This record gives sequence, C-alpha cells and structure tokens, in this order.
Amino acid sequence: MSSQRLIYLPLGGAGEIGMNCYVYGYGPKDQERLILVDLGVTFPDMDGTPGVDLILPDIAWLEERKDRLDAIFITHAHEDHVGAVGHLYERLGAPIFARAFTANIARHKLAEYGFSDSVLRTVSPLPESVKVGDFEVAFLPMSHSIPESSALIIDTPKGRLIHTGDFKLDKTPIVGEPFDPDLWATVAKKGVKALICDSTNVFSPQPGRSEASIGDEITALVAEAPGMVVATTFASNVARVKTLAEAGVRAGRSICLMGRAMRRMIEAAITTGVLADFPKVVSAEEARDIPRENLMLLVTGSQGERRAASAQLANGKYNGISLKEGDMFLFSSKTIPGNERGVIRIMNQFSEMGVDVVDDHGGRYHVSGHANRPDLIEMHKLVHPEMIVPMHGEHRHLREHTKLAQSNGYPATIAVNGTMLDLSGPEPKVCDYVETGRTYLDGSVQYGALDGIVRDRIRMALNGHVLVTVILDEDNEPLGDPWCELKGLAETGKSNAPLVDVLEEDLNQFMGRAAQRTLDDDDKLEDELRKITRRSAMGEIGKKPEVTVVISRLSA
Amino acid sequence: MSSQRLIYLPLGGAGEIGMNCYVYGYGPKDQERLILVDLGVTFPDMDGTPGVDLILPDIAWLEERKDRLDAIFITHAHEDHVGAVGHLYERLGAPIFARAFTANIARHKLAEYGFSDSVLRTVSPLPESVKVGDFEVAFLPMSHSIPESSALIIDTPKGRLIHTGDFKLDKTPIVGEPFDPDLWATVAKKGVKALICDSTNVFSPQPGRSEASIGDEITALVAEAPGMVVATTFASNVARVKTLAEAGVRAGRSICLMGRAMRRMIEAAITTGVLADFPKVVSAEEARDIPRENLMLLVTGSQGERRAASAQLANGKYNGISLKEGDMFLFSSKTIPGNERGVIRIMNQFSEMGVDVVDDHGGRYHVSGHANRPDLIEMHKLVHPEMIVPMHGEHRHLREHTKLAQSNGYPATIAVNGTMLDLSGPEPKVCDYVETGRTYLDGSVQYGALDGIVRDRIRMALNGHVLVTVILDEDNEPLGDPWCELKGLAETGKSNAPLVDVLEEDLNQFMGRAAQRTLDDDDKLEDELRKITRRSAMGEIGKKPEVTVVISRLSA
Repeated sequence: MSSQRLIYLPLGGAGEIGMNCYVYGYGPKDQERLILVDLGVTFPDMDGTPGVDLILPDIAWLEERKDRLDAIFITHAHEDHVGAVGHLYERLGAPIFARAFTANIARHKLAEYGFSDSVLRTVSPLPESVKVGDFEVAFLPMSHSIPESSALIIDTPKGRLIHTGDFKLDKTPIVGEPFDPDLWATVAKKGVKALICDSTNVFSPQPGRSEASIGDEITALVAEAPGMVVATTFASNVARVKTLAEAGVRAGRSICLMGRAMRRMIEAAITTGVLADFPKVVSAEEARDIPRENLMLLVTGSQGERRAASAQLANGKYNGISLKEGDMFLFSSKTIPGNERGVIRIMNQFSEMGVDVVDDHGGRYHVSGHANRPDLIEMHKLVHPEMIVPMHGEHRHLREHTKLAQSNGYPATIAVNGTMLDLSGPEPKVCDYVETGRTYLDGSVQYGALDGIVRDRIRMALNGHVLVTVILDEDNEPLGDPWCELKGLAETGKSNAPLVDVLEEDLNQFMGRAAQRTLDDDDKLEDELRKITRRSAMGEIGKKPEVTVVISRLSA
Repeated sequence: MSSQRLIYLPLGGAGEIGMNCYVYGYGPKDQERLILVDLGVTFPDMDGTPGVDLILPDIAWLEERKDRLDAIFITHAHEDHVGAVGHLYERLGAPIFARAFTANIARHKLAEYGFSDSVLRTVSPLPESVKVGDFEVAFLPMSHSIPESSALIIDTPKGRLIHTGDFKLDKTPIVGEPFDPDLWATVAKKGVKALICDSTNVFSPQPGRSEASIGDEITALVAEAPGMVVATTFASNVARVKTLAEAGVRAGRSICLMGRAMRRMIEAAITTGVLADFPKVVSAEEARDIPRENLMLLVTGSQGERRAASAQLANGKYNGISLKEGDMFLFSSKTIPGNERGVIRIMNQFSEMGVDVVDDHGGRYHVSGHANRPDLIEMHKLVHPEMIVPMHGEHRHLREHTKLAQSNGYPATIAVNGTMLDLSGPEPKVCDYVETGRTYLDGSVQYGALDGIVRDRIRMALNGHVLVTVILDEDNEPLGDPWCELKGLAETGKSNAPLVDVLEEDLNQFMGRAAQRTLDDDDKLEDELRKITRRSAMGEIGKKPEVTVVISRLSA
C-alpha cells in the first residue's frame, strides 16, 4: 500500500479559463489506474488562432496510457467541460459518466461522430456512485449557471477528494438543485483529503449573488419596454432563459426562442425533467405575425459571435424578423474578456437602428455563475480539507487562490497544465511534468498548436505573400522571365510603378547575372530569389512579405 | 450674407473612439473656407486589420479642396488627435496651430517626414486668437489626461462655436490648467451657437473624479511594497506619471523611466514648462545597481502592447532589469476595450514570476480623462448653447449623448463620419453626405481600407493558401505535372496521404482529361484548377483554401 500513490494531472483548465481536462490516478508509480474529469474545449480567436474552429486539449499523454483509463466523468454541460467529447472520444475509448442533462448534451456530440448512446452512462447524484478501479465516484449537486452542475466526490484508498467543478453558492438558483450546505457538511464530515477547487472569481471581493436576485429587475425592465424586446444570454443558462421568458409572459408577450443552441438547451432541459414549467413558446413564423409590443425574442449570441442570432439581427434580419426604432435589446450576460470588440460592434449596429441596448448595468441584469472570494473561503471552511488544489483559472487566479488557501492554513500549490501532483502525503507535491499543449480542430482535421500551420497563416496575414515562379530549361538556363503573384500587398510603392513589376524586374536582373552553380541548385536559387524579393519589397513598400518560390525545371 | 453657411463635417472620430478629424467651413455653399480640427489616428488589430501599422482618416474629400483649407488646429497631443499630422501633412499643406506641449509632440511627427518647424505655429491660450478667413479661433484651457488639452472657441459670422476636444471637469488636475468654470461662463456669456462635445463617457453615471483623488491611494500602495515597484500608465498622462513618481520618492525609491514614449513625454512636458518639479530620475544603467526595494520603474505598455516596456519585462528582461517574486506591478490605467487579451497575457506572465499585479481596483488607482454623464449635463448648462453636436464616440455614445441633450431641451443630432451638418439655422441640419473611410498605413505605404489588400490577408489567415503551378508547351499541352505549394494548411487529411499529393493527383487527373479549349484559355483553366483544388481540399481537410493559380506557357 505504501508504494501506491494518488495523483492529479491537469491537461487543460489549469493556467487558463476553458478546456477543462483533469486526470486522477491511483496505483504504483507509472502504473496508476486513471480516470478523467471533463473533456472541454476553448475557443479560437483571430489574434492567435485564425481559421481554427475549436481548440481541444492535447491528450497525447492520456492516449498513450488509454489501457489504464477506466472512466471519463463530465461535471456539467458547458462547452469548456463537455465540448471535446465527440472530437476526442475515439482516442480514449473509456466509458463516460454524466448526469441526465449533461448526458443529453454529450450524446448529441458523440452522435456527430457516430458513437452510440451506450458509450455514455447516465448516473443519478449521490447516493448513487460509480466504482472504477480503486476509485468510487459520486456526483454531488452544486449550483452553477447550468442545470445539474455537480461536484465529484472521488473516494480513493488514500482518502476522499472533492473536485468542485464550476460552482457558486446559490440557495435559490431558479432551475436545478440549490446549494445545500448541510449535504456538503455531511459529505465532508469524515474528512476530505483534498479539495480541487474552481478559481475563476477569486478576484471578486463581494459575496456572489443568487440567480433569483435579478428576476424583479428584469421583470420591471421588460414591463416598461414599448416595442419588441430581445434578450440574449448563454443558452445553457436555463435558469436565466426561464427568468427572461417569465418576465416576457408577465408583460403580456409571446416568447420565441432563436438560435440552435437556445432551442436545444431548453429542449434538453425539458426532456430530462430539470425544467418543468417553461412558458409556451411560439415559432419564428408565428412570431412574425405578433405585434412587436407583444413579442419577446430570446436569442443566442451574447458574446457577439458572428453567426449567432444576435449578430444576424444586428445585421438586419433573422428568421424574417427585424428590429427597429423603439425596440430594446438586453444583454443579460457579461462579456468574456477578448469578446469586447464583437459585442460592441453589435451594440453600435443596434444603435444605428434606433434600438435601445441595455447591458448588465453593473450586475442588475446578470449574475456570475462562479464563487467569489468570500464564497471560496466559505467553501474551504465547509469542506475543511487537508489540502487545496486550485483549478479552473489562469495563472493569476491559481496563484491568488493558492495564496488565499495558504493564508487560511491549508497546504496548497499552483499546478498548471502538465504539472502532476502527488496527493498521497500531507500536502500536494509536484512529482512530474508532462508535455501538454493544445490541439486545433480545423475543418475536419486535428493538428498540434506547435505544428507551424497557424504560425504560417499569421505571417501571411501580417506580412502579405509573394509567389515567385521561375522556369529553367534542360541546361538550367532561365526560360522566360520570373513571374510574381502578390496577395495581401499594396499594389504600388515608393517608385509609383506597380510593385509586381518592380519585383519581377529585380528578379529578372538577378537571373541574368546569376552564377551557374546558383542556377543548378534549387535551395541556393530559392534562397536568393526570396532574399531579393524581400529586399525589393522592403525598398518599395517598407515591409518584407512572406515569399514562396516555385522553381520548375524542364529537365528530367 | 444669407447665402453663407456654417458647416461641420467629421471625417473621423464620430462613430468611433479614435481618429479625430473634424472640418468646419464658412462661406457660400460648396465654396466655404475650411479649417480642420485634429488629425488623429486609430490603432489596427488582428481581427480586422492584420499587418497594418496605423489607421488614418481618409482625407480625400479635404485634399480635393485643399485650396480652401486655411488652417489645422490640434486640441491636444493624444495620438487619436495628433497622430496623423506627419503622415498626412503633405496632402493638406495648411499651417498647423497648437499650444506649446502639443506643438512639441507634433513637431517630432512632422520632422519624421522632413517638414520644418515653420509649418507649425505655437499659440498661447485665450486671449490670444488666430484669424483665418472668417474664423477666429482661440484655445480655451481644459482639463483632460494630458497637459494643455484645450477646447477651441471658433468665432464665426454666424456666432460662436465651442469644440470641446477631449475633456473632464477637473479642478485639481495635478499638472496643467484646472477646469475653470468662471472662465467658461465668461466665454459663453454672449451666447454660443453650438457646442460640439466629447461623448466618450456618456454611459458613466457617476460624476467624474479628479486626478488628485488617487494620489493618496497610490502613495499608500507604493509605501507598503516590499520589492521593486513597476507602474504603467499612458505616457502622455504626465500628471499620473508625476503622481506615481512622487509616491516612489516618498517611499525612498529612485525613479527610472522606461520606454521611448515615457521619456519623450516627460521631456516634452519639462521643455515646454508644463511640468516644473518632476523628481530626479535615474537611467536604466544606474537602476541596475539600486537595491530593488529602493527602485521604482515607470514604464510604457499599459494596454499590453507587444513591444512596449511592460511586455518586455513580462517576457523576462528590459534594459537589463528583470522582475521577480515579491515585486509589484501596478496598472494605473484602464484597459481599452479590445486590448484585454494583451493585458491579461502580461498579468499572467508576471504571475508566473511571482510578481504581484495590481490593477485599477475599480478606480482606486486610476481615473478617467473624460467627462461622465453628470459632467456632460453640467457642461451643457454652463455653455447653454443653441444646439449640441455630440462627437468623439461610437454610434451608441453619440446616440445617447444626443438623447441626453434633447431631453434637456437642446436641439441635437447624431452626425457620424461623413455627415455634413449645416449649423447656420436654429438647429443642426444634415445637408450632405460625404464619402469617408479609413486609410491604412502599412510599412511605408498608404492605401484605402476598401482596396481589398487586408481582405486578402484575412482570407489567407482564415483559410490557408494553395499555390498551383502548371506549365503548358507550345501546343498548349501540359508539360510535366501540376505542382502545389501549401501554406497554413494541415499536412494530411482524411486519406492519411499528404494533402499536397492528393491535390496534385486530382489536378493531374483533370489536366489529363481536360478539353483542348480549356487548356487554350487561361481564365477557364485557372477557374477549373481553382475549383478542383478547393473541392479536393474540402474532401480531405474539410475546408476550402485560398488558391492562386500560375499558368506558364512556353509559347510566345
């Protein structure tokens, strides 16, 4: 027994907000039996990942050890926890466990890759539990901003772990189980080895507010609106969607859901029984015939996503419905850092239409789904673990959470993606570093973040691109003149002649005087042609483009 | 006289925050004599303007009428008001007027393009004034976040205009003239035709706070810091730099300025006499020998700019100085929307070093330079103009400011870039729409935003690029096989064969069966080759790349 160890290894979600993916293991060193908690995605952006569709954790380490992987547990149905199950399942192959609502969402993702329902087993919360190897895992209901979010109780021969998942302390969450401190106290009573804990809001100094606290404000806002009301929030925030819908109904409005995610989430919530009394909705077609003062749309796109319903309404029309002067658009949401430009673009488009845009107004129409600093302290006290491992945060969140835990006497450490902790002893101990990273899903292909593909795209975007073609005859003599094609570059520069002419002229002169040993050697020739092109462009337009050289030889 | 009109035409700054550029004119229709207020820039980003160095207003309209342009006035030295004077001066050529500090900064920009000092005339504030055509213009001191920011009093035959420039109501601005309500009341006494007014903070409900209000907080923070202290703010916020430096000195620290803009701004402020008692500074070389608890760096890069001092310190080292555990980094600044990712990146890099990062803490260590909503109301009342024209704001700001003015009984209208207003009558009246836009400075070249150059870059970044080369002989028969070069694309797809091989094979098959009339026709052949490449890539990797086809014919 003393040679057994209990390990924790984040492959995603530690050192970032998103892409959650945590490995736990128990057994002899390097022979641990493993379980995985969450398999999420994060989202690309133009700055660092242009053209990429989704970012997945790099699970190479786990894939190499898939014979030791016994199960995958999904804490809740947010994309950054469940989004990669479809894309990565084939490489892992272990059974997936989730609660009903989460399972419903996950099954859609698995089905897209042709996996049958049987790979995923729906579990009820505590007292039900799942035995896998030396682990026994139970879902412990917890409030968050999506139904059935759960912490995991992971019982091991070395003691009990609690992996919080995402959470807030909400006793009136509108939909789903309220935070139940008594239940948590019971779970913690016999002692908890380690609390692995959400860090997202560690910098928020005030206690978090309940989902129920904004209902009246939203109701009052909608009641006063003279024209059409459109509201957006994360579709998965079923409680918020319900609050918004009920505010609409109270104001005598028919409710119409717009955007695929919005309809799917509500459908999943009704199907799985977490949402019992959602107001009757009308279709987009029916909505078109309803006077605007009697209509409320609930739409996707709170983050300014270009293809979502809100962006399309901002562009003019969606499902035959347009907004106009006197209508109101409510962002019942917070803008995630990095998404500001997209959200502001939409706000200005609506402004141009004369639509009144209302944002969260400093929290009047939105509350966060994560535990703030005082709530984290409360959670630490409630569970009173032997040690705390902060997760789900950027480095600064993990560091702050670690300091907070330590200041209250709990051993804690910062463990970013790839840092393996040994939890066997009295405090978390770094025992290994594992190579991790990110995998890009791009079209139908997955490749590594460091493969250089995206780097080339960024370079073309920043520098423009010149294609140089030369043809050489059987004697390695130039056949015709070099040829340039420009993309993403100014047409004329300093000399006022077309840039393409200047480049071709310079290349042509070089070819005329090039030594035979250069013309004989592809690498040498390519190198020279690239250099001349870059120097020539620098002189004309003040920047050095990316250059691709194609040398065609008619010989052999 | 009745055929004369007074016009206002924003070419930048109205419908955006940045790139300020406002035309005023007086005279018979289409023969007005013109003046320009401000000539600023805005900054590119990867989302919409990859590879662009700066964004300038499109001044084509004004350039065509440069014979009617009598003068250019610069309200203050922020980049979005003065940044384009060097880049665009040649196309306008009218004399520039500015106050001493602004002039100092502007002259550096003009000198970079070889313009002599004589094109710019330094003016003192009111009572000095400049007569140009039928206009008489005076600089009216106003508080903002840079020294010598001024409103313009523009006297015209149709009455007095006040163009606020950027402003806040600050009676204790630390550096530069305080807001002087008596002076403003005197200026407004005889009646003001129109107030053209900053809109930036119209959504901020609380009265603005003075620059002086944060001095004690900053002093206390610096006093408690155990290690090195590094603080960043906009270099042009000379008052803030002074406050920070004095906090350092009080805590027994030597002050070191880092980053070109930081040194230049302080130098300009001292040279022009706006900053009299700045603490003695040490060079970076001297700083290296000072114990870290006795050192404070004031650095550029509050917006996370990649090449600025803060980003370089976050990367490890700048001017031989590195931060480490126990040091403190203070953002005495607000993150401008769109810059969040860059700022957060730096925060996390510092966190990894063990550096404590302190941000503005909800305003404890930073105040805005713009008038909030209650301040705007105060300004409206103080000036009591016949009409109000909101400027310096995105559409939503202009709209809100217009509504605010109207609700207090002032005629007002939204006029975005290109909207010409006739201010001659009792209310602002749209009299023309002028084509405007943006000019990109890219390397040493300027071109239009709609020229398609940046669009091509974005497409290459999103879709990757394939170059297809084919050679045809004298009889228009393929000579050798088609050749592909890929950039920014996955190397293998569905079939597990190299993508380049799959594409070349498909293209080769096509060439083998292509009709002679296709091979004879460059356009037809190019079109077919592009289609095949895109279709073939779609099948392999699930996305359609940009394709450039180069057809070389060996015949004449």
